[in-house]
Amino acid sequence: MTTDPIEPKCREQGSEFLPKFDSNGLLSAVVTHAETAEVLMVAFMDREALDATIASGEAHFHSRSRGRLWKKGESSGHVLKVAEIGVDCDQDALVLRCHPQGPTCHTGAASCFYRRLEDGSLHRV
Amino acid sequence: MTTDPIEPKCREQGSEFLPKFDSNGLLSAVVTHAETAEVLMVAFMDREALDATIASGEAHFHSRSRGRLWKKGESSGHVLKVAEIGVDCDQDALVLRCHPQGPTCHTGAASCFYRRLEDGSLHRV
Repeated sequence: MTTDPIEPKCREQGSEFLPKFDSNGLLSAVVTHAETAEVLMVAFMDREALDATIASGEAHFHSRSRGRLWKKGESSGHVLKVAEIGVDCDQDALVLRCHPQGPTCHTGAASCFYRRLEDGSLHRV
Repeated sequence: MTTDPIEPKCREQGSEFLPKFDSNGLLSAVVTHAETAEVLMVAFMDREALDATIASGEAHFHSRSRGRLWKKGESSGHVLKVAEIGVDCDQDALVLRCHPQGPTCHTGAASCFYRRLEDGSLHRV
């Protein structure tokens, strides 16, 4: 982990937004449906993706496999309109409450979490 | 990223549980409340934490700051009883739908996401 000059209590108790990126420059971003609260996907954001999300109101992430900024829906058109951003205690994770403009998963499923683990194997939900 | 010998389609379409750990040996774990679907916390799991969670039915994570297995509630008693585990398309993220045995956040809040970002600063929800 990188050395972090900000006191944990500032992050936990203050009203200042002090996002905490890890040693790879990333934080966790959970997308939920703004109406149903269902978890739709989980991804990572770097500073660039966070700034682009806030500026545009549409979810952007950092693609670790492609090593670049990735606007969700950039090719499919299935963008995620961000209604609200929740911030956790130590500010290293965000919840993006979104209005999805189409299926969130690239497989065509409404949510990427279309299976559950049961007795060691996966079952569609 | 490490080379992954498993075809993406196997992970996406099959019923085999093939969790995909990143180059640090971790995957993302989102804890939601089994009854309300509220996101309670976000953390990471390595293989050890995943196995311990499945074996015990209580959420375990890998603490990156402490570099060790971390059973949620090990000191507070506020464990998370796992009702169901959701698995995403590429199997690098899990949703643990849990019955929390007390507040989830170490600050005493029911959820770690007790603030939202609005006009650049944080507001309690």
